[in-house]
Amino acid sequence: MLDTGLLLDKVCQHAREIALLESTNALLGWDERTLLPVRAGAYRAEQMTCLSGLIHQRSTDPQVGEWLDQLADSPAAADPHSDVGATIRQLRREYKKKIKLPQSLVEELTRTAVLGQQAWVEAREQDNFAGFQPLLVRIVDLKRQQAAAIGYSDCPYDALLDDYEPDAQTSNVRDVLDGLRRELVPLVAAIQDSGREPDRSILTRNYSVDRQRSFGTQAASAIGFDFERGRLDVTHHPFCSSMGPHDCRITTRYDERFFPGAFFGTLHEAGHGMYDQGLRTEQYGLPPGTYLSLGIHESQSRMWENLVGRSLPFWQYLFGAAVSSFPEALQDVQLDDFYFAINDVRPSLIRVEADEATYNLHIIIRFELEQALLDDQLQVGDLPGAWNEKYEQYLGIRPPTDADGVLQDIHWSAGLIGYFPTYSLGNLYAAQLFAAADAELGGLHDQFARGEFAPLLEWLRTNIHQAGQCYPAAELVQCVTGKSLSHEALIAQLNSKLAPLYGI
Amino acid sequence: MLDTGLLLDKVCQHAREIALLESTNALLGWDERTLLPVRAGAYRAEQMTCLSGLIHQRSTDPQVGEWLDQLADSPAAADPHSDVGATIRQLRREYKKKIKLPQSLVEELTRTAVLGQQAWVEAREQDNFAGFQPLLVRIVDLKRQQAAAIGYSDCPYDALLDDYEPDAQTSNVRDVLDGLRRELVPLVAAIQDSGREPDRSILTRNYSVDRQRSFGTQAASAIGFDFERGRLDVTHHPFCSSMGPHDCRITTRYDERFFPGAFFGTLHEAGHGMYDQGLRTEQYGLPPGTYLSLGIHESQSRMWENLVGRSLPFWQYLFGAAVSSFPEALQDVQLDDFYFAINDVRPSLIRVEADEATYNLHIIIRFELEQALLDDQLQVGDLPGAWNEKYEQYLGIRPPTDADGVLQDIHWSAGLIGYFPTYSLGNLYAAQLFAAADAELGGLHDQFARGEFAPLLEWLRTNIHQAGQCYPAAELVQCVTGKSLSHEALIAQLNSKLAPLYGI
Repeated sequence: MLDTGLLLDKVCQHAREIALLESTNALLGWDERTLLPVRAGAYRAEQMTCLSGLIHQRSTDPQVGEWLDQLADSPAAADPHSDVGATIRQLRREYKKKIKLPQSLVEELTRTAVLGQQAWVEAREQDNFAGFQPLLVRIVDLKRQQAAAIGYSDCPYDALLDDYEPDAQTSNVRDVLDGLRRELVPLVAAIQDSGREPDRSILTRNYSVDRQRSFGTQAASAIGFDFERGRLDVTHHPFCSSMGPHDCRITTRYDERFFPGAFFGTLHEAGHGMYDQGLRTEQYGLPPGTYLSLGIHESQSRMWENLVGRSLPFWQYLFGAAVSSFPEALQDVQLDDFYFAINDVRPSLIRVEADEATYNLHIIIRFELEQALLDDQLQVGDLPGAWNEKYEQYLGIRPPTDADGVLQDIHWSAGLIGYFPTYSLGNLYAAQLFAAADAELGGLHDQFARGEFAPLLEWLRTNIHQAGQCYPAAELVQCVTGKSLSHEALIAQLNSKLAPLYGI
Repeated sequence: MLDTGLLLDKVCQHAREIALLESTNALLGWDERTLLPVRAGAYRAEQMTCLSGLIHQRSTDPQVGEWLDQLADSPAAADPHSDVGATIRQLRREYKKKIKLPQSLVEELTRTAVLGQQAWVEAREQDNFAGFQPLLVRIVDLKRQQAAAIGYSDCPYDALLDDYEPDAQTSNVRDVLDGLRRELVPLVAAIQDSGREPDRSILTRNYSVDRQRSFGTQAASAIGFDFERGRLDVTHHPFCSSMGPHDCRITTRYDERFFPGAFFGTLHEAGHGMYDQGLRTEQYGLPPGTYLSLGIHESQSRMWENLVGRSLPFWQYLFGAAVSSFPEALQDVQLDDFYFAINDVRPSLIRVEADEATYNLHIIIRFELEQALLDDQLQVGDLPGAWNEKYEQYLGIRPPTDADGVLQDIHWSAGLIGYFPTYSLGNLYAAQLFAAADAELGGLHDQFARGEFAPLLEWLRTNIHQAGQCYPAAELVQCVTGKSLSHEALIAQLNSKLAPLYGI
């Protein structure tokens, strides 16, 4: 007779052991990007390759596959949304995907990704796409191999997208982003024709790095990031990574002459971090205690960065403290002018510094280029040209260098192809979830003006964080907001903020 | 027919894979002591336990044992001092030791050590031995189990000492330390009776932490620590740890009102680091590329800290820079007074701050207490009392608190019992090696006065670092210095420095 409880214990223990190794690999990766001595890169790649190979080997243990098959047929799996049902479904899903990947490919992808990131840092610094090209060719080739091994029905991109946004289809994402673009282009045009613009110089005055650090840390604490269970450090490319249920690390980068970069970057990464910190710790390593998708992850970061951090009430609460922290830069500045400046809409070159309205055009460019690369309609060597043309076409500006163009993001060098669209999905999820929270809780903006962020965080904990992977992302959003994902909430939110600022 | 080359490749590849995992575990440990968020400790212990278990499992693979047995009987093992001979001998030695340890004991030792260190930090801060006692009881019990599993002919301490100082015997160490103590006690008494003492207040003036950091980094670079292959960070208890052939991390702690702590601590850890950085990188993970013993490791740190860093010529070279870095503290100070102050001999409570002469008495106390604990002649509960009595007896002072007494060192909390005597062995090795280097190179002090440290480092690289584990420590020292280890060189060095200072 089948002892479901015993089998379940076994697969859970197995998953928790894998999580111990994966979180160790996360530390190797975090440290690689944050602290590693310059000459230690090659060995670090070998450490991560070794551990990834070991994790893959353990994850694909046929014994575990048998247990999962048996559990899938048992009554325990009957409710797919229960903790147990979701555990069985998701572990089996991952297992079936992983056994399609040869261990040698997993190891080679890991090694190339670590070395790729190291090469990218240098290539970007030296504006040297040609030097980086052979590595990128190798990465694209490996990702094609991965897509072929995993399999797909429509296009290779589907197979890669699934790593970041499980259950999403390229064609659906394309439809949603098309809808978004159709609304965004006229909105951006209207803003550019409005004749209004903020005084941007407010934000490029002198903001001491030490004070930025302490002000950003204070703000991250205020919205709910728990520094007893996390850290904030400095890196070249900001990110958030968790290496345990109580160890979530965010990073940022400071520029003494540009306030928004580090500040909104910190709120953004803190938003990611608060999702990780809101997961159920007793389920760490198991699907109910694991983040749902990168789109949902990004919805949390973008919500705290933009829907909270760039709102007027947030600054009604915090502007006084900002003036005290940066008196030389801000003592003669009015709140309204500051608020307009941090919501400046303007086509620009760098994705991570783009405003809320044009940001998604940056993503659409990458999404289209990635598909063309995987479909073999674009060669890596032609990428810089194709990039520049699309920026001309969608944003009306042309990067003067590859460093500010095709080399600006770390993702491809790290093997992250299929990842970018989750940023726009995140924006869409964020707007739709925020509207639902506001409707349910009532007056979020009034709360922000009083420095009260706990109600929103609590709502997110209950509705999103603690759900883990019990529902697929599309279903969870339908369930929580009563609607399937569309561009409407985001466009409504942009209009309600930007129309008064630009008089459109 | 036996294909020795093939077998050797297999065992070397196996050892290199183990090194990838062990160096990953080193990163987990370094990060735990340096950066870990306060609430992340328990999970970190599980990560390290998991990895230690996995390493143990792989290290004790019977297939590897068979290969090593075959190799031991082959002509490849004929020259025990060749790279190949040493590889076979040392890997087999480690293998045979590890298979005696049950995996469950290895895991439990790891977990208890990580949690023990976390508990120690709190216990020391709160001066709470009683709260720490149950954990220490558990650690001593586990170490007794370890000694019993490994086996010993004379006393349990032998089995533990071997982890840190391979091939050393407790009785030999006792003899050497007894000889040292017999010379030290009258030397310290003569100094105390001399009526002379330096102006210590020079060292407790205001030394800004930022400047200490940059001055210490400069000095570490000057003697040869390579920051492209290493880092310097801040921790509660300074240490050195390597997590790859090009990734050696040292730590220190700063006190604005005490110059020597961080400065000589940095030189000390840099000395350890330069040993690691001097090992043959192409042999990383194999015995010829691995440090020989903790006594030899400590000889490097103590040599750079004391025989170089506290010498008069070193400060003839560096004092001007020190005055420029700390003008308020040092502008009215004469070099001779500074030199006397940093060589102040005085019985004190804290080992890591003890002078060169009394330092070894601190070690002898721990060495005796550890043996008594393992022989069941002393109970953990009686340790604070026994500690205080020995301080009274050997140093003439009694710790006012356990924080400055029995709780001062992290070692026992980390399961490091049998480790302390390697500190005194390090002092003895350092003095004997330094005398040999000086005889061979001629005029080391003149070189230091000119800021030339490369000749000494090069000599250490050639004679010690690059030898790896090709010779046992006792044999290597005999070979390099022409004498077996004794207290003579250390006593001669102390006399030649201290006699003029104290007029004895």
